Amino acid sequence: MPLEVGVLGYRFMGKAHANALARLPMFFPDAPAVERSVLVGRDEDALSDAADRLGFDATATDWADVVDDVDVFYNLGPNHVHAEPSIAALEAGTPVFCEKPLAPTLEGAEAMAAAARDAGDDVPAGCAFNYRFVPAIQYAKELLEAGELGEIRHVRGRYLQDWLVDPDAPWSWRNDEELAGSGALGDLGAHTVDLLRFLVGSDDLAGEVERVSGHLRTFVDERPVEGSDGETRPVTVDDAYSAQLAFEHGAMGTLEASRVAAGHKNDHTIEIHGSEGSLRFSLERLNELEVHRDGDRGYETILVTDEDDPYVDHWWPPGHVLGWEHTFVHENYEFLSAVASGASETHRPFEPSFEDGLAAQRVLEAIERSDDRGAWVGLE
Amino acid sequence: MPLEVGVLGYRFMGKAHANALARLPMFFPDAPAVERSVLVGRDEDALSDAADRLGFDATATDWADVVDDVDVFYNLGPNHVHAEPSIAALEAGTPVFCEKPLAPTLEGAEAMAAAARDAGDDVPAGCAFNYRFVPAIQYAKELLEAGELGEIRHVRGRYLQDWLVDPDAPWSWRNDEELAGSGALGDLGAHTVDLLRFLVGSDDLAGEVERVSGHLRTFVDERPVEGSDGETRPVTVDDAYSAQLAFEHGAMGTLEASRVAAGHKNDHTIEIHGSEGSLRFSLERLNELEVHRDGDRGYETILVTDEDDPYVDHWWPPGHVLGWEHTFVHENYEFLSAVASGASETHRPFEPSFEDGLAAQRVLEAIERSDDRGAWVGLE
Amino acid sequence: MPLEVGVLGYRFMGKAHANALARLPMFFPDAPAVERSVLVGRDEDALSDAADRLGFDATATDWADVVDDVDVFYNLGPNHVHAEPSIAALEAGTPVFCEKPLAPTLEGAEAMAAAARDAGDDVPAGCAFNYRFVPAIQYAKELLEAGELGEIRHVRGRYLQDWLVDPDAPWSWRNDEELAGSGALGDLGAHTVDLLRFLVGSDDLAGEVERVSGHLRTFVDERPVEGSDGETRPVTVDDAYSAQLAFEHGAMGTLEASRVAAGHKNDHTIEIHGSEGSLRFSLERLNELEVHRDGDRGYETILVTDEDDPYVDHWWPPGHVLGWEHTFVHENYEFLSAVASGASETHRPFEPSFEDGLAAQRVLEAIERSDDRGAWVGLE
Amino acid sequence: MPLEVGVLGYRFMGKAHANALARLPMFFPDAPAVERSVLVGRDEDALSDAADRLGFDATATDWADVVDDVDVFYNLGPNHVHAEPSIAALEAGTPVFCEKPLAPTLEGAEAMAAAARDAGDDVPAGCAFNYRFVPAIQYAKELLEAGELGEIRHVRGRYLQDWLVDPDAPWSWRNDEELAGSGALGDLGAHTVDLLRFLVGSDDLAGEVERVSGHLRTFVDERPVEGSDGETRPVTVDDAYSAQLAFEHGAMGTLEASRVAAGHKNDHTIEIHGSEGSLRFSLERLNELEVHRDGDRGYETILVTDEDDPYVDHWWPPGHVLGWEHTFVHENYEFLSAVASGASETHRPFEPSFEDGLAAQRVLEAIERSDDRGAWVGLE
Repeated sequence: MPLEVGVLGYRFMGKAHANALARLPMFFPDAPAVERSVLVGRDEDALSDAADRLGFDATATDWADVVDDVDVFYNLGPNHVHAEPSIAALEAGTPVFCEKPLAPTLEGAEAMAAAARDAGDDVPAGCAFNYRFVPAIQYAKELLEAGELGEIRHVRGRYLQDWLVDPDAPWSWRNDEELAGSGALGDLGAHTVDLLRFLVGSDDLAGEVERVSGHLRTFVDERPVEGSDGETRPVTVDDAYSAQLAFEHGAMGTLEASRVAAGHKNDHTIEIHGSEGSLRFSLERLNELEVHRDGDRGYETILVTDEDDPYVDHWWPPGHVLGWEHTFVHENYEFLSAVASGASETHRPFEPSFEDGLAAQRVLEAIERSDDRGAWVGLE
Repeated sequence: MPLEVGVLGYRFMGKAHANALARLPMFFPDAPAVERSVLVGRDEDALSDAADRLGFDATATDWADVVDDVDVFYNLGPNHVHAEPSIAALEAGTPVFCEKPLAPTLEGAEAMAAAARDAGDDVPAGCAFNYRFVPAIQYAKELLEAGELGEIRHVRGRYLQDWLVDPDAPWSWRNDEELAGSGALGDLGAHTVDLLRFLVGSDDLAGEVERVSGHLRTFVDERPVEGSDGETRPVTVDDAYSAQLAFEHGAMGTLEASRVAAGHKNDHTIEIHGSEGSLRFSLERLNELEVHRDGDRGYETILVTDEDDPYVDHWWPPGHVLGWEHTFVHENYEFLSAVASGASETHRPFEPSFEDGLAAQRVLEAIERSDDRGAWVGLE
Repeated sequence: MPLEVGVLGYRFMGKAHANALARLPMFFPDAPAVERSVLVGRDEDALSDAADRLGFDATATDWADVVDDVDVFYNLGPNHVHAEPSIAALEAGTPVFCEKPLAPTLEGAEAMAAAARDAGDDVPAGCAFNYRFVPAIQYAKELLEAGELGEIRHVRGRYLQDWLVDPDAPWSWRNDEELAGSGALGDLGAHTVDLLRFLVGSDDLAGEVERVSGHLRTFVDERPVEGSDGETRPVTVDDAYSAQLAFEHGAMGTLEASRVAAGHKNDHTIEIHGSEGSLRFSLERLNELEVHRDGDRGYETILVTDEDDPYVDHWWPPGHVLGWEHTFVHENYEFLSAVASGASETHRPFEPSFEDGLAAQRVLEAIERSDDRGAWVGLE
Repeated sequence: MPLEVGVLGYRFMGKAHANALARLPMFFPDAPAVERSVLVGRDEDALSDAADRLGFDATATDWADVVDDVDVFYNLGPNHVHAEPSIAALEAGTPVFCEKPLAPTLEGAEAMAAAARDAGDDVPAGCAFNYRFVPAIQYAKELLEAGELGEIRHVRGRYLQDWLVDPDAPWSWRNDEELAGSGALGDLGAHTVDLLRFLVGSDDLAGEVERVSGHLRTFVDERPVEGSDGETRPVTVDDAYSAQLAFEHGAMGTLEASRVAAGHKNDHTIEIHGSEGSLRFSLERLNELEVHRDGDRGYETILVTDEDDPYVDHWWPPGHVLGWEHTFVHENYEFLSAVASGASETHRPFEPSFEDGLAAQRVLEAIERSDDRGAWVGLE
């Protein structure tokens, strides 16, 4: 019996996950069978078109009708609709896969994590931080866990985009605090924080973030309403943020994201220095990892596409590069495998979980709080 | 009525094309509907497994039963089985999509091109040079056609792999002249020659290749038989080749490919210099194009992932990079659209055609002939 | 009459400036004539050797005998001997060229700047921030001043070295707060702060730094004494620092430096994003500047070695790259030209002046103060 | 007693060598003392100016008066004046340092090498291929000699410039066969051939070049005379060449140079693949070497500026990059040390010698001969 999946959201993320579900059988034959059962949205026409294109059997306009009716619930809607449906699903015992950031507020994220805790271990609640599933990132993780970089000293995360560099770029829900929570911080910073927690957050590496100093800026404070005749709306979120971090075991870090960095489309860069080595990664060249190991004289540029690299044997021969979307196939494979393993003795937990989503949110909230106070703050 | 597709070959290329066919509906909704009808091979067990995994309705062990029964025939087998089934299909009026190089010998390629000519314009015969369908390459083509590089003076093509650098890497059909025709020259050089013809081969740019000087080398002349106890077989093809080219309108070129270039997995690099500018491309960073235009001081590194870049609007927002396999989706979209346009007044020809496959083969044959004679030779 | 130059310090910086002085006549024929008159130091043997090698006419062990006897005084000693001799020279009306950072403490720097003010405009007091004199940096400055990047939004400065990554690297005066003032912050951060002030500090760009948040860390808190048998001394300065900046006109910035960044030798990187464009520079590739201008799709990598690039016509044809030491020739040329222009009507002021040195020091002091308080602080 | 040096030529190369001689005492204290005695040229005014600027004691307009009067003779004039004065100097027992290529014709080079042979081992005759003296190249040589790359299979050399890309760039002696011998081939190709001979030419690596296939092209066949009113002169040399090489021990190579490669100023690139590893070098980033060793997954980018890198301890600390001109200091140091070692038992031979200059010339001549014949040719 294939798992029946209900999906809320049919735009960018809806397409990315539908594609991932569609590709699993050919490339991950041991993934659980899945049926794209029902697509949930409000605009019936757009929804019906999307369902056809994305291969769903049915549509629904009320998520409440769906969450306890399906085997798995995907919450891919805007940030402000993450909490309620996800919690309802978990209360119904339905595993939930929710897009990041977990919620626009820390309270929302805490409620979601509590619901996941209540639902129990055999009801996976995953937060879809897809960049954990880039093969080069998984390979970096292996190197770090094996101690190849030694004691972690510096981490650096930077996510640069340019789609708001033009002051006339139109207003969207992503510019609104009510709907989005925050701007570059929540949208881009959430990815960076999760990736750094994944890579160096374990107790034998840097541990968790303990204290932060944050800085948020809105460079363009109103934007035109698309299609209107000169109407504008206020931008109530940050265009860019920066932060300094102090980690549990002494490492220091700097973070940054911007939607107004001319010349950068989707440049998510991670750099880590340890007492024995260093590494660098950029999402715009996601098949590559640069590694400096003890005894090396410089960085080695590694194309992480070999047969024994994480996930790569499922795809193509060495040197045949993967794209952004493959990260969704990998995360769906892992999440659905966790769902299918259910309450069995061989239950596979899925990470990043709602706890991970909450942990990232705590860092983001602390960055905002620090920016308000003009001082370093600890995590709540 | 969906087009029924019969596919010969179920390994690397079979998977690449099956995946492309499976992805068309979601991303290219105006592509003709397609049914993966029958998969052709010799080993029934492997074939049956592959058919399940790749989503085919049926299998067949004799291509002769298939070629006039389907709407389209894909020939994805080894080089030495390209000619006969393709010609039979064309004689039956069935459009054919054949992997490159067109045939192991010039005679084979000529027979195939003749069959395509006889079948007529409304029976497309395509040669699957997928690298024409990289968005960055299509964008380069637009720049070249718009005259941005001026008069073409230098072209440089290089395809470096390392899978035979180890003398103990096992023998395969790709090392055998009977089965493969040639080695690096036919396998890798065919791609380079086609890409350069595509980019600068038009009459208002460099025109066709007129004369060549070739050099072929086999560095390791026997290789172990996999699974055997010390048995070896002779390598009867080149491990590497180089060539110099003289084009019709005066440009000069150098070509190279190797299977023993340590440190390179799938490094297909194209460089072009004109009187007004230059460009560079590498397959290992296939989302990028480096362009130097008149008035520039250096090369601009362009991420070719914007909405108005070729094919990109079908996929993801700017900066969300594509992979190697997307080239197959694009070429299948174009080929099947040509098939569907049939004998109509709006018939869309498909390129690269068998004529293009033959033209590339002529260059390869001249390179081998030049190597034999130790002299520059003209194309036959 | 050549200018008689007295130089305090004969190690790294002594050699760098002596070389610069020696090279001026051949490459900058309009530079004032200069005599390397007297070299000042304490260890007579080492001093005498150095004077021979560096081409000085005489030596002295007490700077007090020198400062009013020469036409120009170069203070190239360790940080804690910057203030007293420099002030004495200025009081004697002798122009002073002092290595960076101006002093180990803000008080010291203030006293030095006050002495320079008292000495008057025709007694140049220069602070030797040599990286302003990299041709690519001067070219970047021209672009910025011409408004090519628009309104400045982000600046990023990072100076990574690895010479203390090994916990057994020996103790030196650079690890001592008394002698050095601070560690990575004063040594490396001073360069970064000055370079950013130079590039974007003018009133029609970002303006001055207004507020900072700082973070200092010492990873290895004692180090072996060279040549001793297991003796160690405490490290009382930072191995690394980071900072966030808020500029007068709204730009935000992040700074960082480290002496424990494995894999980086002398990697001073500057990145600037404005509303119209961006640029990047790294000292390890100091002949290059990466520029993204309005309308560009990516960064253009420019080799700043053309005849009309700053200072380049004095050297070699395009593409014949310069090295690190050329920055010293350029700054000496500018400083000595300012000295020679004296009290004339055509007096050429020299920048970076002691005022600039003080301004940089104010930022560094604020970073330390912020780190102490755990809060953003304004500049004093 | 310092060595008295007479120098023929006071333009680009005159300046480069005069600078090198001037810098030796400070950085290479064990170099022999040298006096810039006499500068030789035809235009008395220009010569006198140059002698002042470059630090020569005297001038002369006839080299014949100089060659047996000095301790060392530097021949830095245009190619067609290399042979006669060099031979005269050697016949007088005066060591000669001659710019590359050795002569415009093979006959000239042979006569020069014969004169060097006749003069004997204690009269060094050096050919100034300065790129051998880049620290990164010397480091590459060490790796190759240590067998780190294994058996050599591919070499690739490419020298791209753009100063003739504009058809209106003025005519100069470098465009004339009589004066220059050849164009890009002799000027740029000579460097490439020498560098490859240096790196892989030893008998336990690739050995010498055995056979070549060449291709020369002139894209712009006349150019304006500078300062004239529309007058032009014919270009009688190549704007670009390419070649294929077969080495003694089986390696294959490709060479290329161009003066019309838009976007490249001085891009001399060397790439070598062996059975165990690979390396890459580009003159525009001359402080770097990219190395792929057995067991590595990619290329390591090495900044060759450490204390134990060749020549680097004479200059600055790690990471403080050198420039193009430093290669001249290194080669002058080696050449003059060979001269000073004279007929002693500790005589140090200097390489590249006239024999090396002749060997390079033989390859260039074979490339031209091959181009004429349209066939591979052996070396004479």
